[in-house]
Amino acid sequence: MTEPRIRLGMVGGGQGAFIGGVHRFAARLDDRYTLVAGALSSKPDVAKASADELHIAPERSYESYEAMFKAEAQREDGIEAVAIVTPNHMHFPVAKAALEAGINVICDKPVTRTLEEAEELAGIVAKSGAFFALTHNYSAYPLVRYAREMVERGDLGNIRLVQVEYPQEWLTTAPDADNKQAAWRTDPKRSGKAGCLGDIGTHAFQLATFISHLELDAVSADLTAFVPGREVDDNVHAMMRFKGGAKGMLWTSQVAPGCENGLRIRLFGDKAGLEWAQEKPNELWLTPLAGNHRRITRRDDNLDSEVAVRGIRIPFGHPEGYLEAFATLYTDVADVLVAKRKGESHPMEAWIPGIETGVLGMRFIDAVLRSSEDDGRWTPLNT
Amino acid sequence: MTEPRIRLGMVGGGQGAFIGGVHRFAARLDDRYTLVAGALSSKPDVAKASADELHIAPERSYESYEAMFKAEAQREDGIEAVAIVTPNHMHFPVAKAALEAGINVICDKPVTRTLEEAEELAGIVAKSGAFFALTHNYSAYPLVRYAREMVERGDLGNIRLVQVEYPQEWLTTAPDADNKQAAWRTDPKRSGKAGCLGDIGTHAFQLATFISHLELDAVSADLTAFVPGREVDDNVHAMMRFKGGAKGMLWTSQVAPGCENGLRIRLFGDKAGLEWAQEKPNELWLTPLAGNHRRITRRDDNLDSEVAVRGIRIPFGHPEGYLEAFATLYTDVADVLVAKRKGESHPMEAWIPGIETGVLGMRFIDAVLRSSEDDGRWTPLNT
Amino acid sequence: MTEPRIRLGMVGGGQGAFIGGVHRFAARLDDRYTLVAGALSSKPDVAKASADELHIAPERSYESYEAMFKAEAQREDGIEAVAIVTPNHMHFPVAKAALEAGINVICDKPVTRTLEEAEELAGIVAKSGAFFALTHNYSAYPLVRYAREMVERGDLGNIRLVQVEYPQEWLTTAPDADNKQAAWRTDPKRSGKAGCLGDIGTHAFQLATFISHLELDAVSADLTAFVPGREVDDNVHAMMRFKGGAKGMLWTSQVAPGCENGLRIRLFGDKAGLEWAQEKPNELWLTPLAGNHRRITRRDDNLDSEVAVRGIRIPFGHPEGYLEAFATLYTDVADVLVAKRKGESHPMEAWIPGIETGVLGMRFIDAVLRSSEDDGRWTPLNT
Amino acid sequence: MTEPRIRLGMVGGGQGAFIGGVHRFAARLDDRYTLVAGALSSKPDVAKASADELHIAPERSYESYEAMFKAEAQREDGIEAVAIVTPNHMHFPVAKAALEAGINVICDKPVTRTLEEAEELAGIVAKSGAFFALTHNYSAYPLVRYAREMVERGDLGNIRLVQVEYPQEWLTTAPDADNKQAAWRTDPKRSGKAGCLGDIGTHAFQLATFISHLELDAVSADLTAFVPGREVDDNVHAMMRFKGGAKGMLWTSQVAPGCENGLRIRLFGDKAGLEWAQEKPNELWLTPLAGNHRRITRRDDNLDSEVAVRGIRIPFGHPEGYLEAFATLYTDVADVLVAKRKGESHPMEAWIPGIETGVLGMRFIDAVLRSSEDDGRWTPLNT
Repeated sequence: MTEPRIRLGMVGGGQGAFIGGVHRFAARLDDRYTLVAGALSSKPDVAKASADELHIAPERSYESYEAMFKAEAQREDGIEAVAIVTPNHMHFPVAKAALEAGINVICDKPVTRTLEEAEELAGIVAKSGAFFALTHNYSAYPLVRYAREMVERGDLGNIRLVQVEYPQEWLTTAPDADNKQAAWRTDPKRSGKAGCLGDIGTHAFQLATFISHLELDAVSADLTAFVPGREVDDNVHAMMRFKGGAKGMLWTSQVAPGCENGLRIRLFGDKAGLEWAQEKPNELWLTPLAGNHRRITRRDDNLDSEVAVRGIRIPFGHPEGYLEAFATLYTDVADVLVAKRKGESHPMEAWIPGIETGVLGMRFIDAVLRSSEDDGRWTPLNT
Repeated sequence: MTEPRIRLGMVGGGQGAFIGGVHRFAARLDDRYTLVAGALSSKPDVAKASADELHIAPERSYESYEAMFKAEAQREDGIEAVAIVTPNHMHFPVAKAALEAGINVICDKPVTRTLEEAEELAGIVAKSGAFFALTHNYSAYPLVRYAREMVERGDLGNIRLVQVEYPQEWLTTAPDADNKQAAWRTDPKRSGKAGCLGDIGTHAFQLATFISHLELDAVSADLTAFVPGREVDDNVHAMMRFKGGAKGMLWTSQVAPGCENGLRIRLFGDKAGLEWAQEKPNELWLTPLAGNHRRITRRDDNLDSEVAVRGIRIPFGHPEGYLEAFATLYTDVADVLVAKRKGESHPMEAWIPGIETGVLGMRFIDAVLRSSEDDGRWTPLNT
Repeated sequence: MTEPRIRLGMVGGGQGAFIGGVHRFAARLDDRYTLVAGALSSKPDVAKASADELHIAPERSYESYEAMFKAEAQREDGIEAVAIVTPNHMHFPVAKAALEAGINVICDKPVTRTLEEAEELAGIVAKSGAFFALTHNYSAYPLVRYAREMVERGDLGNIRLVQVEYPQEWLTTAPDADNKQAAWRTDPKRSGKAGCLGDIGTHAFQLATFISHLELDAVSADLTAFVPGREVDDNVHAMMRFKGGAKGMLWTSQVAPGCENGLRIRLFGDKAGLEWAQEKPNELWLTPLAGNHRRITRRDDNLDSEVAVRGIRIPFGHPEGYLEAFATLYTDVADVLVAKRKGESHPMEAWIPGIETGVLGMRFIDAVLRSSEDDGRWTPLNT
Repeated sequence: MTEPRIRLGMVGGGQGAFIGGVHRFAARLDDRYTLVAGALSSKPDVAKASADELHIAPERSYESYEAMFKAEAQREDGIEAVAIVTPNHMHFPVAKAALEAGINVICDKPVTRTLEEAEELAGIVAKSGAFFALTHNYSAYPLVRYAREMVERGDLGNIRLVQVEYPQEWLTTAPDADNKQAAWRTDPKRSGKAGCLGDIGTHAFQLATFISHLELDAVSADLTAFVPGREVDDNVHAMMRFKGGAKGMLWTSQVAPGCENGLRIRLFGDKAGLEWAQEKPNELWLTPLAGNHRRITRRDDNLDSEVAVRGIRIPFGHPEGYLEAFATLYTDVADVLVAKRKGESHPMEAWIPGIETGVLGMRFIDAVLRSSEDDGRWTPLNT
């Protein structure tokens, strides 16, 4: 028997939003979800119009997330999971309410606005018994997962260096007043104290630790807000020291003309070097020290990796991209939730970023902020 | 009011098939369709199991396309369109039956097995009043459409040269007996006389004429079956002459190790040269003759082209790929069908490959086959 | 004891010329030659001024090649070799005179203006006992030589396909009247009947046969002169059949905007595919059929190939280019000439294109011209 | 009248050396020098054999640089310039002696082993009246010079970010005992306290300031010696602050497998971003903020830049590389020295790195070393 689709609600993501649409593409692609309820906007008319567009029944379009969780909890066909796609400051209260209502959570990053909230949320997740997924979508690309396995099986030897960067250009100038995406991301009340750092630096950090298996020890950072009047950083320079002696650099920027969505990582061990760039996601470079050639591993459904192959939908040479990787994460969560229906666990839990990843990301943000305020002093992560 | 989704049926695409799954991804991505019926396999148990997996109600999983069209025609909520994703030899009978039942058709390429069938089908389409779309998906990439507009507005000047190629490696050796995809594609009874030529050469030809606006006059061709025992061509070399004096070359192969899905086109006019490659679909190269730089146009939602922008879902730097372009074609068809519900037409009809494109593709195949049989004599297209 | 440098003369290459300067760079780089005499221009004042610029003693700057060969033959320190860098129509008479004076020849390509001249020259070379080198410089790149060895040792298996192209843009429009390089190349009296075909098509053909070890059987060709008033071809489309069953395509053009000096070759065997492009000469792509990665072999002085390594001057990552490859050819000739001083032969003779390569290139040109005149009929090479 | 060639001597560069050979290629390519004297090795037999190989007359092959400068000063045809290609610790004494003998100096980098020596040398240069050139060869690539001009004329707007890197792989493991290049570079007595930092970090720093026109204010650095037993750094992480508010990162490494000679720079202003990579030196990327395309400027002899064009020898598409750029620097020096013969100055003096560049490079090294010893404290450059 085919498992029924997961019944999904959404908070945020109404007309004019960006990431909500991405989550919906991701939920639809593999047909494992059905979007049945929403509190899509804090403005009632936008919420209503958005729900209508999305074929959500009028009675399941709610004016608030509290109302949604309450009403849905009383339905036999109520939502099993909620996607939280609001600005950062709402992640905590919405996730808390969902978890307390026993609803599984798929939350956008960064997990909360502050480290304190993240740690509090970790306790709530633990008590709730619900599943909590954090959409660090970049780590769901097949070749990123393959890279993680390469590191694990020793293809690189001992890792010495982690060079990660994530430059964009879209905030090079002060944005127009009606640019909603720019507005909340540069408003510390909604995004938190970290600007570029929280928005994309946290992705870079997660990718680096996900692939390398390394644990960050301390950072030395220099944050800048280049655009006049900007209240949060738009450029992050950081040096990193990992436990065990590896070192690294992290650069992320939103004022780098010519850079689109330039997440890119390079790892160097004593046996080989590896490179992956998000804008060319179907290629993974690996150069062994011995030998005189570089290698490009293709995104190939014959790869010797179950976890990589399960995220591949079409043969090599047919490019898959950002939405496919995001969808893979949603499908992994669906597998976990289907298992959970039966009281079982699922091996993909180990591959889905959860609340621990979220807390770690906030510790990274916190340490970077403190180091930068202390003129770049090497600052250990709080634990 | 939001328009209800298009009610879709499917013929072919059961378990073990390839392109049927692609059509379903494409239909789902933008949420404009709901797959409600299917004749998914000629084997009843496969048909049933496949329908179950796809959440198709058991009573709408049919044992034959004839049964489906008959039963669905009698339902008030019967299918409005059918996706035909069978091997080539079934395209004609299924499309004919659908059109005669007044059902709109989304048909995979090549349109039929022979030119005669294609021409007969053109008559049937004309009489039917139904809409007929042919899934030359590559021409739905945003930057391909933009390239077509660049040519139209004269950015290249007069076009002199069209160099198009489409190499793959997957049939370099005789495939395993259980490789269903390889089996029917190399069986003239199911694929037609053209092997590689019909399977991917027709895509290359369509892309070339789609972007260039040129009309092919004659071809000189050399077909080869390199793999011992193969009954159809696995490599095509062709020279082309277009009306108005432009010339070109077309190479397509399925025995080229290192090539994955290497559809690539270059056009040269007297003012500029242009290049696009399917494996890097988010970049379009254009080099003006005057000036000392090459340019890469990005897949950018700020492009000065409505038709390109409507196929872009996410900001630049977030790679979109094969499934997204395929989905764009499905969404364009949905727009046409929604307009048709109201008795209206829709401007995207001009951008969707239809039966004329199908007939032209078969004329191309026919002329290439005849030229090759006649030792490469320049052979005009039949008209 | 260090061997004295080779005493070199030059015919052509005066002020305003192009390829003469390239030969001089090539002769200087490894310090194996000293340019001591010249008949640099048919215009006496240009010849004199050019010789002065090049530190040639006034008494060894000659007004004609005949005078030079005569005078130098009487000097004890007379020239041992002559570089012929004139327009094509002068290659034959100058080479003939040099050979008859017992002077070794380094001749630019194509070897002569006609096949008849080439065949006659072959006889003269045979009789003369002098060494004759033809500067097909592209086959001297280290990775091209390595590719040839890869093919020889079977890395590609049986070769089925040879796709070679050489597009340029510089003759897209009618050149200015004072463009000397363009003027003689588009004048059949000086360049021969083949325009683009002779100028660069012959390089493409030589590269293809050099790497592949294949022998061309027949061609089907379509030549065009796109620019109004042009008397020779500026675009060549050709299909090729090799002995043993391999096939190929050759495209070369001088009207392709965006293309600089785009010589590029791809070979496909039943075991692997290979690619090399002159504009990125320090990389050689090889993709084995088995396995899921592509490989880039680096220009590395640790390569397992003597003949490749001897052409590498600096460590990998320090790009070497066109002049270095040209210089390698000159240095190979120097090694041969030094051995010849002692009455010995040298193993590099086998790697230096000579008169047989020149004759073969003219047979290729001749067959392409005949095929094109005969509307593309498959035309065997004359033998 | 053609100017006679510059009479050149060389210190260091005997058999088994690396950079001496590069200087000789560079001096030869444009035929502006003649190598007439040398103190090529501290070992007499190596010195003698090396001189013989290089066609240096036996009486002008010296056992010490002191002897050479003394003897040559007494010859009418004595050397006009000396190339210093020894390990770092000898740069100072040799340069001092040459300058005091009135001989012009072409010195490899870094200029000296310590900042103190560099400052003392600056005084000696000033007093000597001789010309002093430092071979920061990477800044002589035509497109690097063009980039500098682009910045100067405002194409990038105000520069905010400078990201420069220079990774190599060749010291990933402890080198063999007989690797002379590795031996002195990892020996603080010969290379100075800075390992990778002095060897290639100084190139990266020079390139960054050369193109950007920025002045470094302070650095925060983290040096590492990853290979057990290594006495100098093999990896450098540094953050930079420039006067006027721009910031940057610098990474250089010799333990990065897969990296060959990966010098690469990216600059971001408020109007555009720019990128250049040494391994693809014939391309310069520039992306204006407004507009939806990236641009690759070609190495084209029609560029609107005298200083770029004078370094181009052959048409675009014919790759020029490392040796050509090095030769351009030598030719620039030759122009200066020829002018100096007549008591004139030459405009290229402004483009040739000299003693000020050398002192600045040593200040950079000094500040990085001090910052790293002080656990990454932001450390201003000494002045």
